[in-house]
Amino acid sequence: MEQGFFRVVSRAGFLDLLRRFPAVDAQRLPISRAFGRVLAEDVAAPEDLPLADRSCMDGFAVRAADLFGAGEGSPVQLARVADVAVEAFPEFTLAPGQCAWIPTGGCLPAGADAVIMVEFSEALAAGTVEMRKAVAPGENVMRRGEDAKSGEPALRAGTRLRAQEIGLLAALGVTEAAVSARPRAVILSTGDEVRPVEARIGPGQVRDVNSHALSCLIEEAGGEPKARGIVADELDALVAAIKAALAESDLVLLSGGSSVGVRDLTMQALGRFPDSEVLAHGVAMSPGKPTILARVGGKPFLGLPGQIASAQVVMLVLGRPLVRHLCGDRAAFDELLRPMRRAELSRNLASKHGREDYVRVRLESRPGRPPLAVPVLGKSGLLRTLLDCQGLIAVPADLEGLYAGSEVDVWLI
Amino acid sequence: MEQGFFRVVSRAGFLDLLRRFPAVDAQRLPISRAFGRVLAEDVAAPEDLPLADRSCMDGFAVRAADLFGAGEGSPVQLARVADVAVEAFPEFTLAPGQCAWIPTGGCLPAGADAVIMVEFSEALAAGTVEMRKAVAPGENVMRRGEDAKSGEPALRAGTRLRAQEIGLLAALGVTEAAVSARPRAVILSTGDEVRPVEARIGPGQVRDVNSHALSCLIEEAGGEPKARGIVADELDALVAAIKAALAESDLVLLSGGSSVGVRDLTMQALGRFPDSEVLAHGVAMSPGKPTILARVGGKPFLGLPGQIASAQVVMLVLGRPLVRHLCGDRAAFDELLRPMRRAELSRNLASKHGREDYVRVRLESRPGRPPLAVPVLGKSGLLRTLLDCQGLIAVPADLEGLYAGSEVDVWLI
Repeated sequence: MEQGFFRVVSRAGFLDLLRRFPAVDAQRLPISRAFGRVLAEDVAAPEDLPLADRSCMDGFAVRAADLFGAGEGSPVQLARVADVAVEAFPEFTLAPGQCAWIPTGGCLPAGADAVIMVEFSEALAAGTVEMRKAVAPGENVMRRGEDAKSGEPALRAGTRLRAQEIGLLAALGVTEAAVSARPRAVILSTGDEVRPVEARIGPGQVRDVNSHALSCLIEEAGGEPKARGIVADELDALVAAIKAALAESDLVLLSGGSSVGVRDLTMQALGRFPDSEVLAHGVAMSPGKPTILARVGGKPFLGLPGQIASAQVVMLVLGRPLVRHLCGDRAAFDELLRPMRRAELSRNLASKHGREDYVRVRLESRPGRPPLAVPVLGKSGLLRTLLDCQGLIAVPADLEGLYAGSEVDVWLI
Repeated sequence: MEQGFFRVVSRAGFLDLLRRFPAVDAQRLPISRAFGRVLAEDVAAPEDLPLADRSCMDGFAVRAADLFGAGEGSPVQLARVADVAVEAFPEFTLAPGQCAWIPTGGCLPAGADAVIMVEFSEALAAGTVEMRKAVAPGENVMRRGEDAKSGEPALRAGTRLRAQEIGLLAALGVTEAAVSARPRAVILSTGDEVRPVEARIGPGQVRDVNSHALSCLIEEAGGEPKARGIVADELDALVAAIKAALAESDLVLLSGGSSVGVRDLTMQALGRFPDSEVLAHGVAMSPGKPTILARVGGKPFLGLPGQIASAQVVMLVLGRPLVRHLCGDRAAFDELLRPMRRAELSRNLASKHGREDYVRVRLESRPGRPPLAVPVLGKSGLLRTLLDCQGLIAVPADLEGLYAGSEVDVWLI
């Protein structure tokens, strides 16, 4: 293993390193259980969708050419020769001068190429309908195959399945799909003062907050958390715990692994694995600076700050994209989809040039104006600052701060 | 039942009606399974958090009064009398003129009231440390009980449990909590042309997209979807299906229940229940105008548009707040927490005065500028417009449109 030097990278550089890891294995799931998963393969449409030209409106199926020049002052009369039922395919052909009532979703009869909305028609006596508007060919018609064409890819590998993608699969009669498994993330906590949540503790001890909070963040990112408890701050114990973690996971998180004492121990422990490489030992962001990224046995290993507030920022900024990337999500690093809220900064914020600063803020709504983003400052070890905040402001590395009154984008967390 | 009149309400009015429904029952869950749930009761802290005054930094525990006036040009020398171990409570008392090494998280010895960062100190010979900065009492110290005080509420009923709230419960040794159950939502589809996803279909038929897509949206909102398939467009069948749905749910969704034909049938079916009341029959938004809200047997009933694009907007704008409200979430109607992205509108958008318009948009990122929001227009029955979009723009009811180049907030979906 390369060792003995510090490789501090930018946040963008860190994210680039994450791209080196391959996606986890795929599994086949029924679509009722695939919501939020990422497609592992292209899905070809087994048939056209829709299966026939269908109406988008309640109205009349017509031949567009018949209504050329029609308008309020120059209505055109057509013979109403049939009514299409929504569930039945019409067996007749529409001849010139004819129209047929058609409901939303009804199939167009042969000969018809457009639908005129019922609002622009008036029924006259004896099966005649007056049309008061021209329509273009194809108007108000969903064309056969317009959503998906038989044999062509309807959805691409790497697509995260939202409600609408699940809906498309249902529409195509695709009842199961190959999706990525949820990446299994083993979470290890370190710290001689850290005790399990169930334990009674003395004043020198704290309970294992991070295993629980990080499990939530892994779950939210689409992974499967496996909290494996507390490891003693001791080399052999740490090596054994990492080895066991690698055997049952796609990703290992060591919480506290970047604190001053444990960091050295972590580096030593990683050095015990012949196929390990430290990719980053520090990232130019705050909080989160001492984060470690290594590859061990081909798998990613993240050493996270022990302070939960710092660990949470690292998970959001670096850990979540990693989990999504391991899912094969092609939008894993797309910051366009971060949930943001525009707000006005309530006070000046100083920031150190050369690193990205993430500042916790509380949002206060104000009628008729953008909400106010109020920085939640406080001692770094307290949970209170996390509880009181709704989002983060990122102060870019090339700025030395932001002024009160600035418009900021708050990342909702 | 009141019947025979149309009660069209504004979107805000509709949301107000939703507040009438009570929250679902609570259940006790281990905190490892409570992520995303809503607290049903206040949680009192069983002990102080932290249990003692603890250091936020690596440095020296001092008596702040000793460093009064200290600075680069006027350092103060203190006797280093002990080292505090992070996991052990220090048994000694710090006397005037003394200091003790303390790691992050270590407990302050009696007598000490502040911590000076190691960066502002220099070790001299013979157990003497020179301090080059004054500190205020309490500086760099987490006070006993600063996160939570024994016996006082640490978290309030109605709070949704994010990672940090789960972390707080863990820190307090609270291993389980009373949270709201996931509201059970039965989803019924109507339409004689609608067939199950597994079915082979003819050109006059479509598969049951909505049961699947709505299940995803219910799940995302925090509910438990129960898709119960397709109901024939026939009064007795609909009454029986609604009755069965009410028996196993906290919320009934009828998809297609607001389409022209089914709407009347739905109103008739609701009329068969003696304890039913139609609260809204139409809402001033588009899509979604013909949405029905009723109370049947004390439970909410939502009649949703049959077009999935419309049903999805209604679920996001009205259905999701309802599910969250049924969870007892006190932020159920808080629009401040909607995930938004600021963008620039690519083209003029016309909108009808007097109703809120929700327009689907695709986001295109542009280096150094806000992303472009490109409206995805298309025929209303197609799924393609939903697949191609990442968000919605809401055009307020009092505007007649938005100009190209306007700054807009895109609601990410």
